[in-house]
Amino acid sequence: MKQRYILGLDIGNTWIRACLANLKGTIVSVRKGGVNRSWNLAQSLDQLCGLIEIVLSACTAKSGEVRGAGISFGGLVDCQQGKAILSHNFPVWKNVLLCRLIEERFGCKAFIDNDANLGALAESAFGQMRNVRNFLYLTVSTGIGGGLILDGELYRGEHGLAGEIGHTLVQENGPRCTCGKSGCLEALASGTSLARKAREEITQGNKKGNKVLKLVGGRIENVTARTLLKAAQMGDPFSLQLFQDAGKYLGIAIAQAVLLLDLERVVIGGGVASAGKILFDPIQDTLHSLLLPEPREAVRVIRSRLGDRAGLLGAIALAQRRRDSW
Amino acid sequence: MKQRYILGLDIGNTWIRACLANLKGTIVSVRKGGVNRSWNLAQSLDQLCGLIEIVLSACTAKSGEVRGAGISFGGLVDCQQGKAILSHNFPVWKNVLLCRLIEERFGCKAFIDNDANLGALAESAFGQMRNVRNFLYLTVSTGIGGGLILDGELYRGEHGLAGEIGHTLVQENGPRCTCGKSGCLEALASGTSLARKAREEITQGNKKGNKVLKLVGGRIENVTARTLLKAAQMGDPFSLQLFQDAGKYLGIAIAQAVLLLDLERVVIGGGVASAGKILFDPIQDTLHSLLLPEPREAVRVIRSRLGDRAGLLGAIALAQRRRDSW
Repeated sequence: MKQRYILGLDIGNTWIRACLANLKGTIVSVRKGGVNRSWNLAQSLDQLCGLIEIVLSACTAKSGEVRGAGISFGGLVDCQQGKAILSHNFPVWKNVLLCRLIEERFGCKAFIDNDANLGALAESAFGQMRNVRNFLYLTVSTGIGGGLILDGELYRGEHGLAGEIGHTLVQENGPRCTCGKSGCLEALASGTSLARKAREEITQGNKKGNKVLKLVGGRIENVTARTLLKAAQMGDPFSLQLFQDAGKYLGIAIAQAVLLLDLERVVIGGGVASAGKILFDPIQDTLHSLLLPEPREAVRVIRSRLGDRAGLLGAIALAQRRRDSW
Repeated sequence: MKQRYILGLDIGNTWIRACLANLKGTIVSVRKGGVNRSWNLAQSLDQLCGLIEIVLSACTAKSGEVRGAGISFGGLVDCQQGKAILSHNFPVWKNVLLCRLIEERFGCKAFIDNDANLGALAESAFGQMRNVRNFLYLTVSTGIGGGLILDGELYRGEHGLAGEIGHTLVQENGPRCTCGKSGCLEALASGTSLARKAREEITQGNKKGNKVLKLVGGRIENVTARTLLKAAQMGDPFSLQLFQDAGKYLGIAIAQAVLLLDLERVVIGGGVASAGKILFDPIQDTLHSLLLPEPREAVRVIRSRLGDRAGLLGAIALAQRRRDSW
């Protein structure tokens, strides 16, 4: 009997992933390859197609058996044209008609969206949000991205940027952001900003940062969000305070979203979210203080459990939802 | 030939309005009555039904010719149950099954929603937002309410409260709000808060408020947002600054919404919006400074032209959109 598969692709800044799933969305084969920033487009496409061939052959699947493909892209996309427009961290993918390339090579219908939107879709289709009609998905890692499921459907907005609250104002006259503005959420709660803040304070002679400094063998430039998380988990007050502050600003931005959209839940993934209670307690406290007593105090913020498969699962869900056009 | 009509009702804090429209939504007969706060529920219902009878007889319409009815309510509603739950300013409408009452009395199918959601729907169906898929409608008068049209449909959220950004934080440690929190948009940009701020400053001896004080014949307690608007239009710097500040805070809250939802437009109605440029220039300036350069800088904030018919038009649009269940 002829099998039918969905192809899932996740083009990120560090890894490129490919997987094959059955029509129900269960992944039956998966493979990843490290991104090499020195490669040109042809080389990057070769890598991508090579990964696809591997997951196909692992299932002894033929191209014709792949019916739909979903692509998660870590940057700006044009969904209508099936185009990867721009990735700040990985400039080789610029105005690439990815969907057409996949369609021509593998004989299936392909769809693309950005990783934040597809993270939300993954939560809705396969994660903890399966029965939640209205929620915000956030990913907090080097940057902060987000996606929205409203009335059970992915809401994209005018340019596919809905849910992107990394550049919402959470502190007047706050620190400068990479976008050029000041006081953005991303400048106060991303992994990058946590590490920068720690390095600044240590450089300025804050003795409380000694434990962190010890963890990196005195090499201040090696302090990352991961270092701070490790220190915080060991009870280091300096690092705990940094996560506490980040949680407060996340709480402010989340409260804006909950009030505006009357949401039921918020789910957070990404590296910084792995801090768990250290981060989620101040988020929930801030949220509680900023929401009206009723009925929105019931809103809960939870940690995503999809891990690094969020992109692939979202890509699969995207292809599933477009099944009528396969 | 038998006519077919839509009944539109608007239950507000000052006026109750009824109208009859044809199936295209053109109002053919309208009537309003002033709210009397000393009336009980039976008396208030008598007034409402009396207004309906008048608009029916003005068109020589019979009850059976009214096919669908929409109700705009200035407070909390339960759309599923067709119930007016609570109006802070007009406590007689508490847990009233309004839709059933209208259905039984006038033999038509009735639908209810709050005035802010229906203001948004009115803009989408009959106003300047007819071709706009994603926008926020705000009404800025004594309080601040809002509604959202997303992907061309009214988005209500979990409890019908979507779009209600009156209680979003726009100034840390800002003035106390009626909701119990501090620094809410409503505490900084509503007509009530403008007037309160003016009275406070004048009471504290701010000489710049002299022109305003003169307009109310020295009776400081008579200073309202209307007084300030009049003074501002005469060029009074004290009043102009108040509108400038209100515009700034509205701009902050609107920027949050535009960033989160990737909106195309924002439309503002209500008494304070009649200030025009005095208010809209600082809104647009703030918005411009808070949005990323591309592509969201194109977002424009415009003034609603629906005036006091927003509620009725929204009620008609609601009934129209539910036509499949008439």
